[in-house]
Amino acid sequence: MKLGMIDAEAGLRVVALNPDGQYVDLLALDAQISPTLIGILADPEGLARVASALVTGWSKGPFIDGRLVAPFSRPGKIICIGLNYRDHAKETGAEIPTEPVVFSKFSNTITSPEAPVVLPSVAHQVDFEAELVAVIGKKAKNVSKSKAFEYIAGYTCGNDVSARDWQKGRPGGQWLMGKTPDTFAPIGPWFVTADEIGDPHDLAISLKLNQVIMQQSRTNELIFGIDELVAHLSQLVTLEPGDLIFTGTPSGVGVARKPPVFLKNGDVMEVEIEGIGVLRNPVIADLHNQ
Amino acid sequence: MKLGMIDAEAGLRVVALNPDGQYVDLLALDAQISPTLIGILADPEGLARVASALVTGWSKGPFIDGRLVAPFSRPGKIICIGLNYRDHAKETGAEIPTEPVVFSKFSNTITSPEAPVVLPSVAHQVDFEAELVAVIGKKAKNVSKSKAFEYIAGYTCGNDVSARDWQKGRPGGQWLMGKTPDTFAPIGPWFVTADEIGDPHDLAISLKLNQVIMQQSRTNELIFGIDELVAHLSQLVTLEPGDLIFTGTPSGVGVARKPPVFLKNGDVMEVEIEGIGVLRNPVIADLHNQ
Repeated sequence: MKLGMIDAEAGLRVVALNPDGQYVDLLALDAQISPTLIGILADPEGLARVASALVTGWSKGPFIDGRLVAPFSRPGKIICIGLNYRDHAKETGAEIPTEPVVFSKFSNTITSPEAPVVLPSVAHQVDFEAELVAVIGKKAKNVSKSKAFEYIAGYTCGNDVSARDWQKGRPGGQWLMGKTPDTFAPIGPWFVTADEIGDPHDLAISLKLNQVIMQQSRTNELIFGIDELVAHLSQLVTLEPGDLIFTGTPSGVGVARKPPVFLKNGDVMEVEIEGIGVLRNPVIADLHNQ
Repeated sequence: MKLGMIDAEAGLRVVALNPDGQYVDLLALDAQISPTLIGILADPEGLARVASALVTGWSKGPFIDGRLVAPFSRPGKIICIGLNYRDHAKETGAEIPTEPVVFSKFSNTITSPEAPVVLPSVAHQVDFEAELVAVIGKKAKNVSKSKAFEYIAGYTCGNDVSARDWQKGRPGGQWLMGKTPDTFAPIGPWFVTADEIGDPHDLAISLKLNQVIMQQSRTNELIFGIDELVAHLSQLVTLEPGDLIFTGTPSGVGVARKPPVFLKNGDVMEVEIEGIGVLRNPVIADLHNQ
């Protein structure tokens, strides 16, 4: 199933995308379905309830119109993995890590499809990073790699936008300030359930900047697979429904290019992942301090 | 005012501590008061409503009994500042930073007063860090240092528990995994409003481990004051009511001692900050993987 959140006349609504491109209004189909995607995941019967409502709903609706917004607007955690594609680790000059490199973004970064990524006036080297985002479906602590996929509800596209001049070369070496400016985590357009994705380690992933391909790879290039990430993280951290894991980005980011390419006012980024769709975001300059 | 959350027979309740040590039941005083502290902060009239209800409530109640829990159970952000006391930066061998070192914890770390900090079976160098925690009271973006205190609602005590063997010496150099294990952020016992604290840059702060003083300093040793932190952070990040800023820890942490001191099963930590109170937490070993 492809599920999403839309901004409709009646407010935010959770919908499913049917094969004809129509938005099925889930709450109108079954009033017991949670009104948010995160609520559906938090309910152990949530996805099953949606699937059963869709048996008739797929073709018959009721349908609803609206603008797609981020499938998760305030995830409990946005966990990010750095240097997790062999080719990207190489292009940044970093060694291939021997264990996952883990950092975070705050939820002020979440941005809807088609909504602008805003370049802060104090950041001058803002970059793109196409990423497959895994979404936690149930509470996970001390989960083994062999059972880890039971805890993944599905996937979406993400763009781990990064201000390189705040991420690197600052006292303490922590990446957070470069990773967590407002609007720096577009996600969407759809949340696609794990059963529909099949093997998440064999998906085409790409990013176009102004229609030019900048990143193009497959998720089989991941150094640490999604199951390894869940096992690694859950040794120390309880993962919860709706938590997002940005799994890392392939080569081709702007900072590693010669000359480097950084985002500017008017740019358009498109992250595409096989089976999920295209996450498109324009870039605008913050006029606040200018 | 000293405000807090208690676990009462009727469930979680927001209370004020009166001078006789009684817990005033705020919701029973005025049903329009939000049932959570974070809700009170999110309401522009929230603290004023509480203050006005307490004019009679301080002495007359109604009072309620219960166990104090963390004043904020799921803050939107837990922002932490590293190396922010001159003496602590020195003892860790780090240079005095030229700008704030910013990292984070996820909300799975939040722990109530008297609740155990759990040593993960995979972490062997777990340390304590007494910290003054500033609590954001209203939405802040691009706030100047001179106006920054208008955005601080108040303060609480925090303990930035840290697994040194996960924080340092790992690929990528990110501190997050050492900082964000479950239970690693005790906070409380009280949220004290800014007007009652007076100057937050002139408070005694200490930590006792098993009744022995390990850290003892004053917040006038802070390198970057709370107003500078708000200005720095809000250049890039929108701060919101209930967001927590752990402002850094003074010298005396376990890892810098010779020989080093790390937490073990049965230890008891007590963070004390002038005007706020004592945040006491026992330490227990995680038996999950043993």
